[in-house]
Amino acid sequence: MGKKDDNNNVIWHHATITREHRANQNGHKGVILWFTGLPCSGKSTLSHAVEERLHKLGCRTFVLDGDNVRHGLCSDIGFSVKDRVENIRRVGEIAKLLLEAGLITMTAFISPFIADRERCRGFVPHGDFLEIYCDSPLEVCEKRDVKGMYKLARAGDIKEYTGISSPYEEPKKPELAVNTDKLSLEESVEEVLLLLVKRGVISSTTIDVKKC
Amino acid sequence: MGKKDDNNNVIWHHATITREHRANQNGHKGVILWFTGLPCSGKSTLSHAVEERLHKLGCRTFVLDGDNVRHGLCSDIGFSVKDRVENIRRVGEIAKLLLEAGLITMTAFISPFIADRERCRGFVPHGDFLEIYCDSPLEVCEKRDVKGMYKLARAGDIKEYTGISSPYEEPKKPELAVNTDKLSLEESVEEVLLLLVKRGVISSTTIDVKKC
Repeated sequence: MGKKDDNNNVIWHHATITREHRANQNGHKGVILWFTGLPCSGKSTLSHAVEERLHKLGCRTFVLDGDNVRHGLCSDIGFSVKDRVENIRRVGEIAKLLLEAGLITMTAFISPFIADRERCRGFVPHGDFLEIYCDSPLEVCEKRDVKGMYKLARAGDIKEYTGISSPYEEPKKPELAVNTDKLSLEESVEEVLLLLVKRGVISSTTIDVKKC
Repeated sequence: MGKKDDNNNVIWHHATITREHRANQNGHKGVILWFTGLPCSGKSTLSHAVEERLHKLGCRTFVLDGDNVRHGLCSDIGFSVKDRVENIRRVGEIAKLLLEAGLITMTAFISPFIADRERCRGFVPHGDFLEIYCDSPLEVCEKRDVKGMYKLARAGDIKEYTGISSPYEEPKKPELAVNTDKLSLEESVEEVLLLLVKRGVISSTTIDVKKC
C-alpha cells in the first residue's frame, strides 16, 4: 500500500476483504435465513429470538423486517401486487449485501409467493439461502391477530390480505419447517440452530459452549 | 423465553439486539463514512484500503459502491437526474441498516449534490454520518480516467458527466477532506483512522496495537 512506481506516482491498488476473510474473523459463515409464513405465524418473533441466541453465542447477525425496511428503503412503495414484488426483491438484494458483509442475515416477511422467494434464492450462491417456513394453521395465526389485521381483512377493510383474500403459497421444499403452533419459542430456536450446524454455518462447538 | 402464561399459551416475546449490544461485541461503534468526490478522485480505492486496514485491526466493516449496488438493489434504475437521486437515497438507507448492524460502513459514490448527501445524513442519528471529501483537482482526476469515462464525456458521448457536463458540489463542512492527489494511499488511510479515533468510533489503543 502506498508504494511508488517508476514515474514516482503512488500506486493505489484495490484492496478486497472477501467473505472468507469475514468468516475467519467471525468464526462463522454468513447465510440468509429466509423466514416465510402467514401473518402472525411467528416469523418476526422467531427470527429475533434466534438473533438473540446467536448474539449471545458470539455470532454477527441482523434481522430485516417490516420495521426497518418498510419505513426506510421501501418507504417509496406501497402494497399493490407490483409493489409487493418489488419490496421482496429489494429485501433479497439487501440480504445479499448483509450476507457479503459476513452476517447471519434473517428476513421476516410474509413473502407469500414461491416465485418471489425463489428469485431471491437465485441472488446468492447455492446453499447461502435457507428457507424457513413458519408453519402454523390459519386459524391459529388468525386467533393471535397481533395487530388486528385479520379482523380488518375479514371485514373487508383490508384488501388482498394474505390468508384471507390473497393466497399464501407454502414452500415445497423449505430447508426447515417449524411448527410454530406446537413448539415453544425455545424449541423453535433450537431447530433453527441445528439447521445452522448441519449446514456448516456455525460449528456444533459454538452451541456446546453455550455462552448464553 | 418460552415461558407459559396462565392459559398455557407460549409467550413469545420480542427480543431485540441493539446497536449497543453490537458495539460491545465488536469493540467499536458502527458509523457511516460517506466518501464523496469527482470521478477518479479515489473514493473506492481509499474506502477499500480503509476497510482492509480496519479488518486487520479486528473491526467489522463493509463498503457499498457501484459494483455491489448498481448491479443489485439499484439494477432497476438508470442514470437520469431523478434516478441518481433515488440511487443515493437507497444507498443512504442501506448504509443506515448496515450501521444498525454495527458495521463501520463506507459508501463510495460520487454523490455530487449537497442536498442528496444531507438527506442521507438526516437518516441517522447526529454524529453517525461522517462525510469524507476526496479532494483532488479535476485535471488530476481526469488524467487518471480509470475507465476512460472522462474521455467519452469530453467527446460528448456521455451526457451529464460529473465534473465535465454536470456539476460537483463540494462539501462545505465535511468531517474530513483528504487531498488524494497529494497524499499516499497509506497517509490517506491514516487520516481516516485518526478521524475514527477522534469521533470515538474506534479507540486509540485499537490502532496502537497495529495487528496489521
